[in-house]
Amino acid sequence: MFEISSKLGQQLFFLRELDKLKAVYRKTMVKPDNNRQENSAEHSWHIAVQALALKEYAEEPVDICRVINMLLLHDIVEIDAGDTFAFAESSELSGQGAKEMQAAERLFGLLPEAQAEEFKALWLEFEQVETPDARFAKAMDCLLPVIQNMDNEGGTWAKYQVTRSQVLKRNQYLEKLAPKLWTYVLEQIDISVQNGWLKDS
Amino acid sequence: MFEISSKLGQQLFFLRELDKLKAVYRKTMVKPDNNRQENSAEHSWHIAVQALALKEYAEEPVDICRVINMLLLHDIVEIDAGDTFAFAESSELSGQGAKEMQAAERLFGLLPEAQAEEFKALWLEFEQVETPDARFAKAMDCLLPVIQNMDNEGGTWAKYQVTRSQVLKRNQYLEKLAPKLWTYVLEQIDISVQNGWLKDS
Repeated sequence: MFEISSKLGQQLFFLRELDKLKAVYRKTMVKPDNNRQENSAEHSWHIAVQALALKEYAEEPVDICRVINMLLLHDIVEIDAGDTFAFAESSELSGQGAKEMQAAERLFGLLPEAQAEEFKALWLEFEQVETPDARFAKAMDCLLPVIQNMDNEGGTWAKYQVTRSQVLKRNQYLEKLAPKLWTYVLEQIDISVQNGWLKDS
Repeated sequence: MFEISSKLGQQLFFLRELDKLKAVYRKTMVKPDNNRQENSAEHSWHIAVQALALKEYAEEPVDICRVINMLLLHDIVEIDAGDTFAFAESSELSGQGAKEMQAAERLFGLLPEAQAEEFKALWLEFEQVETPDARFAKAMDCLLPVIQNMDNEGGTWAKYQVTRSQVLKRNQYLEKLAPKLWTYVLEQIDISVQNGWLKDS
């Protein structure tokens, strides 16, 4: 084995640590795999492909490579901080930001310094949602569960009694950035309320 | 729902179909998740991050965005064609190429025509391994199991009695393209033979 102090050794250690994201389970279910829970590694893959497939809908200029890189890295902090449900009570979310920041320091900090800074900056840009790239990435992260829940009789919305206004708020970045996708989401929300999958409040 | 004949409808149908890659299980095991088998969706995520982290080791110029896109798309054909073990008997592999080509036609063919052609061309470039981008992508696909097996007492190598020459052949693209990673692989192979994880032939 390479000494861990070598540059490549640090990078390989980081890559080995990433295996743990495959053991972080989200609320979303994988319908074609007997409705087991989805893990954050396979979710990250799915939204990265989604960004590639739907990039034409971004009406502000976005750099799709940066978007995809953000999506590949955005959930790594969950290895230490765990996944939190998108529609969790705010009491459950308190302290999550600090936990994720600490996780980013430890996990990206396994890499050589310049690369650690680069990856951490991409992650932070995603979290702050202040650039078009980050908005498109965040929109992709929120849109996929809409598609998955619509395919699964309301999925986690129905199971956890989620409301129309919660889903609207979560997908807000689409309204200006990708109006065609926003229209799609509005239609799905209406259908879901009609079907009783989302609460009408 | 959007009519499936609309462009967005076709893209969303493709994205829904991708959920099935999370149910395609490979031989490689995920050590931090009780050594369950790895699926091809989470594997695709891991090698895409690996490419991003190790891009500096490519000594020919590579376009890392194209490499990452190839890696995100390269296993999608397994939804129809299934995964084949890297070191399977050649009789088990016969017909796999034709099955994967048919799978590419069906799966990428769900997308609007121009996008279908674009994605299929990227997949085919990966399969043919004739460009630097494809060689680096293929090298990433083969390198990760080395890292995972070294972390797991030989993992699939030990379990399926794989030989030194098989692993050398599988990682051949590294020799010229990324000599530092090739040196790492050679060292791991030596250690593995010494430990009895790889057969010395």
